[in-house]
Amino acid sequence: MSTNAVRLGLLGYGTVGAALGELLAEQRVDIAELTGLEIEITRIAVRDLSKARSIPAEIVLTDDPAEVVSAEDVDIVVELVGGVEEPLGWVTTALAAQKPVVTGNKALLAAHGAELFALARHNRTELFFEASVAGGIPLMRALQHSLRGEPIRRVMGIVNGTTNYMLSKMTDEGASYDQVLAEAQRLGYAEADPTADVEGLDAQAKAAIIATVALGASVHARDVYPTEGITRVTRTDIANARRLGYVIKLLAIVERIGDTAPYEVAARVHPTMVPQDHPLASVRGSFNAVFIDGDAVGELMLYGHGAGGRPTASAVLGDVIAAARSREPGKTDSFALNPALAEAKVRPADESKSAFYLCLHADDRPGVLSEIANVFAVNAVSIRSMEQQGLRSEATIIFITHEATEAAMAATVEKLGSLPCVLEVGALYRVIEPL
Amino acid sequence: MSTNAVRLGLLGYGTVGAALGELLAEQRVDIAELTGLEIEITRIAVRDLSKARSIPAEIVLTDDPAEVVSAEDVDIVVELVGGVEEPLGWVTTALAAQKPVVTGNKALLAAHGAELFALARHNRTELFFEASVAGGIPLMRALQHSLRGEPIRRVMGIVNGTTNYMLSKMTDEGASYDQVLAEAQRLGYAEADPTADVEGLDAQAKAAIIATVALGASVHARDVYPTEGITRVTRTDIANARRLGYVIKLLAIVERIGDTAPYEVAARVHPTMVPQDHPLASVRGSFNAVFIDGDAVGELMLYGHGAGGRPTASAVLGDVIAAARSREPGKTDSFALNPALAEAKVRPADESKSAFYLCLHADDRPGVLSEIANVFAVNAVSIRSMEQQGLRSEATIIFITHEATEAAMAATVEKLGSLPCVLEVGALYRVIEPL
Repeated sequence: MSTNAVRLGLLGYGTVGAALGELLAEQRVDIAELTGLEIEITRIAVRDLSKARSIPAEIVLTDDPAEVVSAEDVDIVVELVGGVEEPLGWVTTALAAQKPVVTGNKALLAAHGAELFALARHNRTELFFEASVAGGIPLMRALQHSLRGEPIRRVMGIVNGTTNYMLSKMTDEGASYDQVLAEAQRLGYAEADPTADVEGLDAQAKAAIIATVALGASVHARDVYPTEGITRVTRTDIANARRLGYVIKLLAIVERIGDTAPYEVAARVHPTMVPQDHPLASVRGSFNAVFIDGDAVGELMLYGHGAGGRPTASAVLGDVIAAARSREPGKTDSFALNPALAEAKVRPADESKSAFYLCLHADDRPGVLSEIANVFAVNAVSIRSMEQQGLRSEATIIFITHEATEAAMAATVEKLGSLPCVLEVGALYRVIEPL
Repeated sequence: MSTNAVRLGLLGYGTVGAALGELLAEQRVDIAELTGLEIEITRIAVRDLSKARSIPAEIVLTDDPAEVVSAEDVDIVVELVGGVEEPLGWVTTALAAQKPVVTGNKALLAAHGAELFALARHNRTELFFEASVAGGIPLMRALQHSLRGEPIRRVMGIVNGTTNYMLSKMTDEGASYDQVLAEAQRLGYAEADPTADVEGLDAQAKAAIIATVALGASVHARDVYPTEGITRVTRTDIANARRLGYVIKLLAIVERIGDTAPYEVAARVHPTMVPQDHPLASVRGSFNAVFIDGDAVGELMLYGHGAGGRPTASAVLGDVIAAARSREPGKTDSFALNPALAEAKVRPADESKSAFYLCLHADDRPGVLSEIANVFAVNAVSIRSMEQQGLRSEATIIFITHEATEAAMAATVEKLGSLPCVLEVGALYRVIEPL
């Protein structure tokens, strides 16, 4: 097979960039044998040129990303910087110059995905983004190609490894939120400022991308609502969930609503009670997994490392090879929104439906339960199960409801809080019903 | 977007063919919107024309597959018949006529995969085969595209739904092999003649295909050795496994051996003890799952329905869309073996390595254990754990070894069988060591 030189320009050389360099060096011969492509890095843009790095001498190092993007000897731009505004400029320039782009930047795609896909298409080039969601898991390609004809109904994902590590620790070891956060920080799983992970913002951006690609709809991070993190999850909640047959996982959930156009879509992120025998329940530690529900394919789950240098670099490398192939004449096959869904309305959060878990502390005397049950009934929230634990004059009552709207549940919670017999409205969780 | 008519000729109209027809009818508008492709079935070949079917009147029905393959109004051939010799002729004719082929035929690919891939490439057309292994799970595309640059070390799969259903029932309900086989037959999960499933032959063909595509090596069904089914798995084995922290699963295992060329490859199918906390252990019922171990991506698992009309039709439909795209100029991207692995030697079964579980019945008197342990030592098989249960004058002894070759273990078993103190050599299983 004749070989074909492909020159990469890297923007950013952190963990993933360095792992990509290493992986390319190891796999160069195999890739050339298998694909006929001689892939080499010609230029790298870094923020701080003075930092010590072991980069081969033939690679040009610069602190000006724009120089890499426009260089004659760069065929494909690999953006691994992060952030939104600056990368938007570089990626736009590259696509306009008909250079395929590979990015792992979830924030950029969650904010500008639809416009960048359209720009790539307009310029007959491609934007690849497998690494932006769930690291090494080949989710984006499965959604774009294998499942292109599949009527996808719902995707539920554990897409943040830090919070899954923390929740797994709390579940397996009975540790508290503060203990596991400290340990995650010590081990480098959580940042010194853990906000993006624990408040669900990282998962929010990924939910927007999954919704866009799985459903073909234009969904931005701001459309993902509610977005709740794990900061309020307690040991007691986890123990209660376990007793009832559930584990608590932070899920990104996207759904197509309706059987024919005009469809609506919904996207949300929140801690969720998942039945113990659901495949997502056994996803432990920092692993990610995405569970897809299709009308034809049924249930499908992809599981793997959602972060880390080498797993993410593996996804970037798959994209680089696809990008190299896309430069051959006629090969462009850029992602496009589904016209039937591109304008789909994002369902207002109030109308979003799930089953709920609600924990109340109330007076333990005759008539209280009836008064409480009446509030559910008046708000059209139907109770699936109830469990009461007395504690002298006070009772803890746990309800699991049938499916109800967020609005109905919020009204229920508000009214319950105003009842004199209710001492405290405790934890509220959305619940996935058993398969 | 302008639309592009694509005409399919179906060979076979059983469960999958009928589901494909149904799915195309449901999704026609969405697919056209999304891809610009107007996909329609123009011809169907069936074995028995007299059988009642609800097929739209505009589709030409015939009992001559060759007529469908060569018809002017057939752009893509979808082979869903099964068997080897006849389909080989039809597929060869179609590829030679530069018509892309979509097949779900594992037997055909396990016997002639490498030559058909080469034929497709030679004719600048493509052979698609996602449905041949693990039904609706997008495994083949992930291996061919997302993981194209990934150094895959090992793939372990639960690729036969019937035997996984049976083993799950035996595990969860303590039922016997004969009971679950009868129930699987009653429910239609197992055929009246269950040989292909329970003797591991179905998994053997799939192991050959996975080895070919994951490793880029030329592996035939006859290279998959040992191939053992589940007919000898007992309730006692399952109970012993559980006590030791394992579940028994029928796995297809393929491996690349060595870190640089010349590589060897190995492929085998056998009931395996899988640690309870391994992701494969929680794959229950008729689900399939494939666990991939890559040097860069780490651990990856794909899970879903491995059979059934609609899940399999979903995989066929993904392939049909890709096949339609492949007809556009320059789009051909046919699978090819890895030259570094195409000639890889298949490792002789004797040299294949794993940890083993061995159950012995022996006299319960001083000195016996030492005599037995000596046989392991002489054959260079190292014991990881041992458990002895006395029963009056007789003891049941269970060993789990460290990794050893098949040859060393076979020699150990043979020698143990000849010791006067060993009353019976019981079950032998390969064991996956905990992650």
